[in-house]
Amino acid sequence: MSEPRSIIAGVEVDQPDVSAATAAAAHAYAGYRGTSPEQRAVFLEAVAAEIDAGQAAIIEAAVAESHLPQARITGEVGRTTGQLRMFAGVVRRGDHLGVRIDPPLPDRAPLPRPDIRQRQVALGPVAVFGASNFPLAFSTAGGDTASALAAGCPVVVKGHPAHPRTGHLVAEAVTRAVAACDLPAGTFSFLLGPGNELGQALVTDSRIKAVGFTGSRGGGLALVAAAARRPEPIPVYAEMSSINPVVVLPGALDGDATDLAAAYVGSLTLGAGQFCTNPGLLFLPSGGAGDAFLVAAGEAVAGTTGATMLTGSIAKAYRSGVAALQTADGVRVVAQGGEGGDDAPAPQLVEATGLGGAVDDEVFGASGVVVRYDDTPGLLAHLEALEGQLTATVHATDADTEAARALLSVLELKVGRILFNGWPTGVEVGHAMVHGGPFPATSDSRGTSVGSLAIERFQRPVAYQDVPAAVLPEPVSDDNPWGLTRRIDGELQLP
Amino acid sequence: MSEPRSIIAGVEVDQPDVSAATAAAAHAYAGYRGTSPEQRAVFLEAVAAEIDAGQAAIIEAAVAESHLPQARITGEVGRTTGQLRMFAGVVRRGDHLGVRIDPPLPDRAPLPRPDIRQRQVALGPVAVFGASNFPLAFSTAGGDTASALAAGCPVVVKGHPAHPRTGHLVAEAVTRAVAACDLPAGTFSFLLGPGNELGQALVTDSRIKAVGFTGSRGGGLALVAAAARRPEPIPVYAEMSSINPVVVLPGALDGDATDLAAAYVGSLTLGAGQFCTNPGLLFLPSGGAGDAFLVAAGEAVAGTTGATMLTGSIAKAYRSGVAALQTADGVRVVAQGGEGGDDAPAPQLVEATGLGGAVDDEVFGASGVVVRYDDTPGLLAHLEALEGQLTATVHATDADTEAARALLSVLELKVGRILFNGWPTGVEVGHAMVHGGPFPATSDSRGTSVGSLAIERFQRPVAYQDVPAAVLPEPVSDDNPWGLTRRIDGELQLP
Repeated sequence: MSEPRSIIAGVEVDQPDVSAATAAAAHAYAGYRGTSPEQRAVFLEAVAAEIDAGQAAIIEAAVAESHLPQARITGEVGRTTGQLRMFAGVVRRGDHLGVRIDPPLPDRAPLPRPDIRQRQVALGPVAVFGASNFPLAFSTAGGDTASALAAGCPVVVKGHPAHPRTGHLVAEAVTRAVAACDLPAGTFSFLLGPGNELGQALVTDSRIKAVGFTGSRGGGLALVAAAARRPEPIPVYAEMSSINPVVVLPGALDGDATDLAAAYVGSLTLGAGQFCTNPGLLFLPSGGAGDAFLVAAGEAVAGTTGATMLTGSIAKAYRSGVAALQTADGVRVVAQGGEGGDDAPAPQLVEATGLGGAVDDEVFGASGVVVRYDDTPGLLAHLEALEGQLTATVHATDADTEAARALLSVLELKVGRILFNGWPTGVEVGHAMVHGGPFPATSDSRGTSVGSLAIERFQRPVAYQDVPAAVLPEPVSDDNPWGLTRRIDGELQLP
Repeated sequence: MSEPRSIIAGVEVDQPDVSAATAAAAHAYAGYRGTSPEQRAVFLEAVAAEIDAGQAAIIEAAVAESHLPQARITGEVGRTTGQLRMFAGVVRRGDHLGVRIDPPLPDRAPLPRPDIRQRQVALGPVAVFGASNFPLAFSTAGGDTASALAAGCPVVVKGHPAHPRTGHLVAEAVTRAVAACDLPAGTFSFLLGPGNELGQALVTDSRIKAVGFTGSRGGGLALVAAAARRPEPIPVYAEMSSINPVVVLPGALDGDATDLAAAYVGSLTLGAGQFCTNPGLLFLPSGGAGDAFLVAAGEAVAGTTGATMLTGSIAKAYRSGVAALQTADGVRVVAQGGEGGDDAPAPQLVEATGLGGAVDDEVFGASGVVVRYDDTPGLLAHLEALEGQLTATVHATDADTEAARALLSVLELKVGRILFNGWPTGVEVGHAMVHGGPFPATSDSRGTSVGSLAIERFQRPVAYQDVPAAVLPEPVSDDNPWGLTRRIDGELQLP
């Protein structure tokens, strides 16, 4: 098998030439953004179909490169193609175009009102950085790529060095779909090469108009800083780090908490803990019921064995994060699982007397911190002190309703998703999902990187005033040929 | 009359204490964002009513401080209160809450789908910087303030030093409305003090979560840079500079172009040219018809007299911009109007052989540049070379339709608003308006600072997964007590 290479505008090349890729994307932009909803939807479906057709090889490569189980990777293929097909539906419906029409009022005094129409247009070429932990769903043809393509933006992917073969196979699938749909070749390019340098070059290229990134806080902040240094600043949607607090309210510990503890440890250790939404911090009531939960959770952790992590450097970072945590003030180790090998470090559970220092730092992997609280005010004070997060989870029963309401209004300002009586790992792809949140969970809390709202990150509004009918773009023309829902004089009108 | 002072959370103070204002705003945030649509709408209407009630004094102060004519200022009061009332309507309708509900699918295989709901929440305290050129509509209770308050964000205004009395009177009106509506006092504060220092302190205060600004490119970029240096970056919506190209297509010059030339000069010199949307650059066909237009425009400019500008320093900046333009390569002066006084410099019209250098720089005031073109490709090349703009104007007849279509697809990527056969000065406040555009017209092309879409700049989405009915916020609850339009499983459903 040959080495996976970059693909620029449909052509396999040896060098990840950033300028060539962005020039091709800029060239493709006019044609690609001009596609009709049906053309664009068919293209997104063609990408999904090409991935489906190539899935045997893709799954084999992704399992080999990521060390994730085959069932998980197979599920991720379905998630990836499902996402693409969801965006095809979004594009066909066209609500993301946000069409608004304020009809003229020629007789208004003292001045007539002109005819004003509005729609959203695609921002331009988008740079997408694949994630290590989702080699498919958050990578080459993952959520950022699918939503940017759906918005009408050409995409240049920086393939993740942890899964070059997987990335290349998926890039080939996208490339085949571009050709089959007769779209401009520069609609999609895939660059493989040395990480930081290539990433900086891509983000600072003047032709790139927005960035989607999923990865570490350090990596994300470096891209944000690079984008801010550009003569023309651009939006950077970096999904970076989160410890995803879980709050166990007293009612949830009524009766036997063994099942709850086991479910917690299941979420904590799922996929070697390598989820952006891994529940890294749990708030537990003081007292006997909390003690029992902690003992049960410790036993569950002790019964686990480390799974091989995505890369050797991720395993190494996990080990050093674990060491920092174990030696931090006020931290005691509750339990550790078994070592699974050099790159399969042991899961662990620790208890901390409070927040701060290493306790609040994300340890990417299966490491959990438990903090005890005495009452609702004490719990709220802990939550107020947290940084922005992707998710917050509450375990509660009807007896906890009052406390749960108080929590909700604090958590709304801290996180992108609040969930009850479940676990944050597993992010449903749909219309109501938010995978985002206040800094530093992301660099821009106005967006989501999962779900159909993600398309809105790659658009901006344009108004058309008294533009003659013969010149008006189709989505804002009187006869509404695309059958769009439109806001007429402020009021939504279904087609 | 006493000196106008700062008002922090309802209290007149001598010092513009940034921390006190932002602390009060942060304290007010929970209560203010928790208001019902009706409460918030009534408040916005109360602000409008207080401004109406105080308009005699407000108009007198604004005319004296801005040197703008009374009719213009009177119109601006109406625009300001109209904006507030429009946002009251937007808040009552509630579409900006963007409610989405994906109902649970308990029987879905392999995994059930949880119940997921989404709404937009207010970002938090917003800093607003008033503009010099609209002492009312883009200032203390102008579009940024109205849209931020409508979104549920407390506002801290940095009053513009060019109109402290006007700002203070309007701030008193808002303060009275806050008290009358029994809202937290920190919902609104108004700071008067030394410009740059105060502005930097405000933007870098950790309690401020977004910024609205209208002013110069230098001022806007300084705030953008300050915000980027914060540990937690925040959105900055700076509306900065634009030369608002006008394209005259050949058909528009058929027959007598005198009226067209007079209308152009009317827009160019309106309000001493002190509009963000002033038509600073006009593309005119080569040849006899274009020559005749230019002669007529020159005659019209020669017949004007300079009006007193907003401040002495603005007049001085205009004079130095004019001088730079007159001495730039390839520039010849077509006509100058009469001097109206030290702070009322003469309007001017110049012709330039091409773009670049001083020709593309915004000269804030009544200075116009005309560039000739030979054919549509030449014209498109000029337009492609322009920076981002707030507006582009096209004068065309049916004979120009083909060229107009070609222009439109270029202009869409350069500007926030395209208008035909009119003039860019005069920005309609409505639902379809976009007052924004690609950098450097604004720092964030995803928003508009005029029109109802402006509210969306101050929100972010939150998802609620399996949250019990007793805990769910009202806008996403099953019984839809606010009568909202909601997106159910991806499809919009009117209430």
